[in-house]
Amino acid sequence: MQTTLLKISCPDRVGLLAQITNFIAAQGGNLKQVHQFTDVHAGWFFARLEIETLTLRCGVEDLRATFGPLGAELGAEWSVRAAGARPRVVLMVSKLGHCLSDLLWRWRSGELECEIPCVISNHETLRPLVEREGIPFHHIPVSPENKAEAFLQMESLWTQAQADLVVLARYMQILPVEVCARWPARLMNIHHSFLPSFVGANPYQRAYQRGVKLIGATCHYATADLDQGPIIEQEVVRVEHFHSEHDLLRLGRDCERMALARGLRYHLTDRVLVRENRTIVFRD
Amino acid sequence: MQTTLLKISCPDRVGLLAQITNFIAAQGGNLKQVHQFTDVHAGWFFARLEIETLTLRCGVEDLRATFGPLGAELGAEWSVRAAGARPRVVLMVSKLGHCLSDLLWRWRSGELECEIPCVISNHETLRPLVEREGIPFHHIPVSPENKAEAFLQMESLWTQAQADLVVLARYMQILPVEVCARWPARLMNIHHSFLPSFVGANPYQRAYQRGVKLIGATCHYATADLDQGPIIEQEVVRVEHFHSEHDLLRLGRDCERMALARGLRYHLTDRVLVRENRTIVFRD
Amino acid sequence: MQTTLLKISCPDRVGLLAQITNFIAAQGGNLKQVHQFTDVHAGWFFARLEIETLTLRCGVEDLRATFGPLGAELGAEWSVRAAGARPRVVLMVSKLGHCLSDLLWRWRSGELECEIPCVISNHETLRPLVEREGIPFHHIPVSPENKAEAFLQMESLWTQAQADLVVLARYMQILPVEVCARWPARLMNIHHSFLPSFVGANPYQRAYQRGVKLIGATCHYATADLDQGPIIEQEVVRVEHFHSEHDLLRLGRDCERMALARGLRYHLTDRVLVRENRTIVFRD
Amino acid sequence: MQTTLLKISCPDRVGLLAQITNFIAAQGGNLKQVHQFTDVHAGWFFARLEIETLTLRCGVEDLRATFGPLGAELGAEWSVRAAGARPRVVLMVSKLGHCLSDLLWRWRSGELECEIPCVISNHETLRPLVEREGIPFHHIPVSPENKAEAFLQMESLWTQAQADLVVLARYMQILPVEVCARWPARLMNIHHSFLPSFVGANPYQRAYQRGVKLIGATCHYATADLDQGPIIEQEVVRVEHFHSEHDLLRLGRDCERMALARGLRYHLTDRVLVRENRTIVFRD
Repeated sequence: MQTTLLKISCPDRVGLLAQITNFIAAQGGNLKQVHQFTDVHAGWFFARLEIETLTLRCGVEDLRATFGPLGAELGAEWSVRAAGARPRVVLMVSKLGHCLSDLLWRWRSGELECEIPCVISNHETLRPLVEREGIPFHHIPVSPENKAEAFLQMESLWTQAQADLVVLARYMQILPVEVCARWPARLMNIHHSFLPSFVGANPYQRAYQRGVKLIGATCHYATADLDQGPIIEQEVVRVEHFHSEHDLLRLGRDCERMALARGLRYHLTDRVLVRENRTIVFRD
Repeated sequence: MQTTLLKISCPDRVGLLAQITNFIAAQGGNLKQVHQFTDVHAGWFFARLEIETLTLRCGVEDLRATFGPLGAELGAEWSVRAAGARPRVVLMVSKLGHCLSDLLWRWRSGELECEIPCVISNHETLRPLVEREGIPFHHIPVSPENKAEAFLQMESLWTQAQADLVVLARYMQILPVEVCARWPARLMNIHHSFLPSFVGANPYQRAYQRGVKLIGATCHYATADLDQGPIIEQEVVRVEHFHSEHDLLRLGRDCERMALARGLRYHLTDRVLVRENRTIVFRD
Repeated sequence: MQTTLLKISCPDRVGLLAQITNFIAAQGGNLKQVHQFTDVHAGWFFARLEIETLTLRCGVEDLRATFGPLGAELGAEWSVRAAGARPRVVLMVSKLGHCLSDLLWRWRSGELECEIPCVISNHETLRPLVEREGIPFHHIPVSPENKAEAFLQMESLWTQAQADLVVLARYMQILPVEVCARWPARLMNIHHSFLPSFVGANPYQRAYQRGVKLIGATCHYATADLDQGPIIEQEVVRVEHFHSEHDLLRLGRDCERMALARGLRYHLTDRVLVRENRTIVFRD
Repeated sequence: MQTTLLKISCPDRVGLLAQITNFIAAQGGNLKQVHQFTDVHAGWFFARLEIETLTLRCGVEDLRATFGPLGAELGAEWSVRAAGARPRVVLMVSKLGHCLSDLLWRWRSGELECEIPCVISNHETLRPLVEREGIPFHHIPVSPENKAEAFLQMESLWTQAQADLVVLARYMQILPVEVCARWPARLMNIHHSFLPSFVGANPYQRAYQRGVKLIGATCHYATADLDQGPIIEQEVVRVEHFHSEHDLLRLGRDCERMALARGLRYHLTDRVLVRENRTIVFRD
């Protein structure tokens, strides 16, 4: 069944959902699933509506145009799109291929509805994995000397690729602050710890030393503050005394893959809304 | 913050949620959280709306009266009530006290907003646990000879207690078919297995013999078909070869307590809707 | 660090572990990790010992030869091998590639220490996925008419491949009883339900219809009784009312991949011992 | 079945487990379950042996006396005791009763094999909950002025009670450093966060603000460094955007109860060994 997605957040007031659902009903739209949440303290309204596309009297373009004035009146951030429309996602990787290969597999199998215009890496290691899927691979080495320039080059590739989202799939470089600022809620990172534990480098080593009994991974939007951006999804796995640091790496890989795959899926299906440093995630 | 809850299910059609939210907006009601789901195959609409009580121009009674015609027109099953209104829940127990003591603790601590007019058992074992909480305890022995009569007596107590719900908290008797039929979606049971595995007696023993690696518990509405009613919540825990049947009983107790406590909480907060043999649970 | 693994099960008696550890100490072997469990009711002893290879005065062959008489005296099933020795694992698949691609990725990345001499399928679908890894792919169609013959051909390939283990990675054919009997504890299957729920065909469809709140997957040794063999590992995931049958398939894939990958890893690291229809799994 | 427990840790060397199991076999002891682990980097050996008491030729006292010389020769920390011997556990609480009532229930039901000679609190709040179980309750108020004196009084009560372990079951005071130093690995705390996240005060508030998607609890031995002691057990639960801080408190309670109950059970069954700041936990 084809579905049209309306995602919206705006200052709260009485009658908001009525206005929105009236609008959809006026277009003939039948609702399949609605999530609405009000952050009462912040006075902010969040909603996601799944509409049966075939019941709508107009196409997505028209729907969007018609909704414009209401969205403006509400002071809303909003989007309307066909669930089948495939956002364009650029993947950034270094040498570790576990997240990349998991995403590629899910993408091939139809779990992740997006286009992958290209993969960018600071190493050549994963080129074969990417090219055998027919996806262009760009190698942009990063060194302390060329860092600023390298990231300009990357951003330029993102723009050329018309990227809706950039996913740092264990890309081991810290992005320049100004790059993060230019792509708010459009840079997704997977951090290999259960944040806010073990912010920064070598989280598995530090988890081992601390002797924690669960390790985890965190999918979040990257912001200028390292590992401090809004959290989308987290996953954990139990570890025991007999697990070496090497075992933690192995077990963590599955956490990272699951947290990133779910976080990305939520993003691609318009389930994630951001306000300040928290996410509203209408999970599936 | 005080909340008023509207729960509704009815045949699906375009504009339903608009009609309902218009109605609430017309009463001044601000929405705090809305869940709406359409079972497209069944053509059935389900929704739960949390309204900030203080924004409503009228009281719950009036709201209910005013909603009546719309509810009738939609052919809906629906309820409107203050979240603070405390449904009346009769607990049925036998000799095992783990679910009972967990529910009593959650009730005392405010996690479960309900009244417990009485506890009924076929044994005297748990009387002290109940009476020290100031709750009346009724002992109704059940034997093959008196079974029909005993259950009539129990039903009579339920009715006297004005029970909105009866919870079989490890009550080890099978209820007569006609009793189940008279209390649809108002009899909640906790079964000590991960249904549909190990329907019937001695599930932990059978789980041990089968060598499963996870055991569980199932909270469901009791129906005339033993262990076949609509499932509300399930919980599992990992077990290993070194766990004896006795260990399974111990580990299972925590599953049973969690699944029952959550299932009951969902029911008490109007999060459970039933259609045929499936539940829609808008979880919290 | 190199490790030598001793796995043993035999009738219980006093002093067994002392005899075994004396034997290892006499060879200079330092123990890294020992698991021992006695099934007191069955009177059966199970143990797994990890020995630091470098501390041993003799090689694995000699160790095995020297242990022979003790093993015989104890009436034991036992094995001694270098942890690095790579068992030979034949994979059987049909059209669904999720388990296959997960196993291949884990194998490439070193998580699964084994050889994969070939993959066999009753369809051509997955040939490219296999051949791009440099692994031979055999297509053996199975029809009601040729079934006996086809399985003889497969068994012959298993034998030629010197298979230590055959993994049915969503191979959708039921194996002939006599084949199962000839490969006891050497045929590993992944069943797409939380056994013993939904034995047989279409488990996701039946899970949807029953309205369960958790679905799962079961890794077990195949025996002549369909889906009744000893369970090695199980995994579950929470599902909700809004998940369609199609969603259950998607969510179940991750369960299947995890349960199979872990079960296979346990097997490859000599962590699984079988007695009657239960497994002893010294998990890592 | 009666069981005798031998727990031991010492510098590693070849033949250790053989020596220990020879000793037990010489006393006629049959082993029911053995866990042994060597921390190869630290060169340290850890083991726990469950012996069938009825097979032993001598009593626990004699076994202990006989093992003494071997233990001394190995430079070991060790203990031998009957599994049925009930360690004496003093509980410390403030105003929150959820951990206390959970522990009391598990203790009454036989899940926790220990004596509870008394409960100590800095408030009167929980006195009824304790006294109705027939357990003495001591109220020792703590203020900035009397803190040193109050803790001397408490320690004196611990000593009078012949406490083997003191459990801080949401006791909201920070213990003086010198108290912690005098009771190494005998002070168990439950911290209401997934350590090392949210060390210190108000972890649920900070978890809410950070927008984490899982919250947790940590059972650990208290040391002079606040929330830095060796971790015994951790538990987590998923949270979502619609959970208020109040909801986090509620959901966290179940995490705290489970993590503390399991950690305490591991301790009481001699499953926890400590070396430096890490625990070896032979879980059940």
